[in-house]
Amino acid sequence: MANYIEQNRDRFLEELFELLRIPSVSAKSEHKPDMVKCAQWLAGSLLKAGADRAEVMPTEGNPVVYAEKKIDPAKPTVLVYGHYDVMPPEPLDEWKTDPFEPVIHDNRIWCRGANDDKGQLYMHAKALETMVATGTLPCNVKFMLEGEEEIGSGSLYKWCEDNREMLSADIILVSDTSLIAWDVPSITCGLRGLAYMEVEVSGPDKDLHSGLFGGAVANPANVLAKMIARLTDDNGRITIPGFYDKVRDLTPQEREDFNKAPFDVEEFKQSIGIPDIAGETGYTTMERTGVRPSLDVNGIWGGYMGEGSKTIIPAKASAKISMRLVPDQDHHEIARLFEDYFLSIAPAGVRVKVTPMHGGQPYVTPTDLPAYGAASKAIEETFGKRPLPYYSGGSIPIISGFEKILGTKSLLMGFGLDRDAIHSPNESYGLDNFFRGIETIIAFYKYYAQ
Amino acid sequence: MANYIEQNRDRFLEELFELLRIPSVSAKSEHKPDMVKCAQWLAGSLLKAGADRAEVMPTEGNPVVYAEKKIDPAKPTVLVYGHYDVMPPEPLDEWKTDPFEPVIHDNRIWCRGANDDKGQLYMHAKALETMVATGTLPCNVKFMLEGEEEIGSGSLYKWCEDNREMLSADIILVSDTSLIAWDVPSITCGLRGLAYMEVEVSGPDKDLHSGLFGGAVANPANVLAKMIARLTDDNGRITIPGFYDKVRDLTPQEREDFNKAPFDVEEFKQSIGIPDIAGETGYTTMERTGVRPSLDVNGIWGGYMGEGSKTIIPAKASAKISMRLVPDQDHHEIARLFEDYFLSIAPAGVRVKVTPMHGGQPYVTPTDLPAYGAASKAIEETFGKRPLPYYSGGSIPIISGFEKILGTKSLLMGFGLDRDAIHSPNESYGLDNFFRGIETIIAFYKYYAQ
Repeated sequence: MANYIEQNRDRFLEELFELLRIPSVSAKSEHKPDMVKCAQWLAGSLLKAGADRAEVMPTEGNPVVYAEKKIDPAKPTVLVYGHYDVMPPEPLDEWKTDPFEPVIHDNRIWCRGANDDKGQLYMHAKALETMVATGTLPCNVKFMLEGEEEIGSGSLYKWCEDNREMLSADIILVSDTSLIAWDVPSITCGLRGLAYMEVEVSGPDKDLHSGLFGGAVANPANVLAKMIARLTDDNGRITIPGFYDKVRDLTPQEREDFNKAPFDVEEFKQSIGIPDIAGETGYTTMERTGVRPSLDVNGIWGGYMGEGSKTIIPAKASAKISMRLVPDQDHHEIARLFEDYFLSIAPAGVRVKVTPMHGGQPYVTPTDLPAYGAASKAIEETFGKRPLPYYSGGSIPIISGFEKILGTKSLLMGFGLDRDAIHSPNESYGLDNFFRGIETIIAFYKYYAQ
Repeated sequence: MANYIEQNRDRFLEELFELLRIPSVSAKSEHKPDMVKCAQWLAGSLLKAGADRAEVMPTEGNPVVYAEKKIDPAKPTVLVYGHYDVMPPEPLDEWKTDPFEPVIHDNRIWCRGANDDKGQLYMHAKALETMVATGTLPCNVKFMLEGEEEIGSGSLYKWCEDNREMLSADIILVSDTSLIAWDVPSITCGLRGLAYMEVEVSGPDKDLHSGLFGGAVANPANVLAKMIARLTDDNGRITIPGFYDKVRDLTPQEREDFNKAPFDVEEFKQSIGIPDIAGETGYTTMERTGVRPSLDVNGIWGGYMGEGSKTIIPAKASAKISMRLVPDQDHHEIARLFEDYFLSIAPAGVRVKVTPMHGGQPYVTPTDLPAYGAASKAIEETFGKRPLPYYSGGSIPIISGFEKILGTKSLLMGFGLDRDAIHSPNESYGLDNFFRGIETIIAFYKYYAQ
């Protein structure tokens, strides 16, 4: 098998590059045709890899690619989940190379989606090809690749409900997460949930002259700043009433275990160029991103943003604000609490609109799952080290949806690294990660079928 | 004279339209050639209007148009000041017509600069033409038209210093302000000063994934919101230490006089579409804009501002923040106090940069000035009502500069109205304002020469 991968190494990369060149940005409607093109390309690629069946299935939004390779109804079935949509590449001027033209440099692939999630999902396609070509596939395999993960998987819930039987499986296998470090392999056991909101504060019916009106009119940008400021306190706690009611506190033992994973604060600061860490008082950085909820402004805008100066009171100001959630917070409830609170703190001189954008529930994978054991053995085989269970701060909202709709648990075996800069300019993915990922996936199948 | 204006009415407007079509936006460097074109056009127009001399004089920035018509050294000299640069037209999608293609509709001219200040300065050119053509010019006249007023008149200070003798005059006459209302004519006796700042809060060296890092890293957009929130308190007072130290308080009598001008709060709210007024506790709307300082965010931006959602912690967030100042605040000192305070409230997890953009001192015109008396009589003649002295909230920073450099006071006789929406989309200027302005300027010369 290692031989087969080695012999086809260049072709595997050429194929991945074709996939990466399709600018499948789900957040922007102008890319609708790219989403379809990308799905068709993947279906074709899975057929060539050895699937019995692969098709592009329509949804209310972007299509889902479904494929399957059945070898024996008595064998376990693995359902691979991934997403072919990517984050918008902006800010474009910070990219050192074209965001949709992959280049290899420093033993890494540089491109939007190189890791998240095209690079990671394509490992599964090539693992399937390798196992089929070498006659070593030990399980039934299904693929479900969606095009809306980065915008909340809006259409996949209904698609899963409509195709429950087709999707029956023993485990959902997902590579859309990271290792703690290349020499500290890990399996992601926890994901935070998400509640993503857009808010708009509006005042006058047009931009006003800030001299003629300044001081006598509530300025929507000043008001928005004040309202955002009131979402968190000086201890980094979120002030929305009821926000923490359902947050499960860790026991002292759990906290001790949780902080066992190696973490160097100086290295962390340096890796992202920050002068100091920040966050909720009384918790470590690992806890702050892993098991505590957070609230971030993802974007803010209003008034004059161009060169030079313009003396106006903007007619309106807006922000995108998202919260990461932890067990047992419910994203619907949090969205409602946010909206109630945000509207309640609006002063009389403005109008405020709150729009929930999308959300997802937090998720925990039990470490006594057979699939966890198989993944642990597979990683130990390829990395030479037993992986640590890891709680990631990220969210894959659909994962809890799968359990609810399909009744199937998910195993998150991802091969990214922090340095991959997913969602950021200059996203990259290590060639070693890609190829060792393929080997590890093949090993997982071997152990899982036993 | 009224006859001459009537006979040439259409031509006056055609000429003004030519001037309005030049997109002389000083805030954007791409418009540099338009600034020169606009200055050349004005110099040519003033020569045709009867000036002995009109030229485009270079400065370190945009050129100044200087012109003069000397009739008798024994007569008083009026120096007309105006500016040919305009505000950026953005947001473009809110304009009902092309911002640089004037149209007449509803007895008004709709175009960027229709009032501010091309429409108002062109009244002076046409008043000169009328007086020269009808042999009624009773004073010496000089023109000084600059192209940087909307960005702080940066080059004009030095140009005035370099041309002090050439600019000697008894009064500087300016039409760049508004009347209280068409039936409540006024002369602007007070202008607020301005201190315009740009601030940038930066954190990580790139946009980060808000899931993987959220909660453990100071978010520059959240921090910026909190810092802006700390610039004002719940009573609408500015919290920068020392900010109010030099603010001259009005006596009870002055406050009573000041509030005599007619003001209808419901009409005010309706005219700009706000649900309620706001501002410093204990002061009226007239006082808040006229004699009290203010602080406004003119623009704010950071992170993802596009369609849909993007889950990032932005690397940085910025804002343009300006303060309107009143006697005896000094804009240099206020800029320094702002910077000191803003840097002092920055948390450890971010870096903060403060850039003072431009500023101007507040200004007061004494009502016992001969030019004030002449303007008062002129307005009474053309409007049929004695004008009220008015304290405008706006700023024309160079006005106090003129007094300091040239030793000459300014008389602010503007003919705009609040509804003209200067600095906003759909700026307009009434045809009646334009033509009655010309008549009033001619009457001013008559009374001033007496």
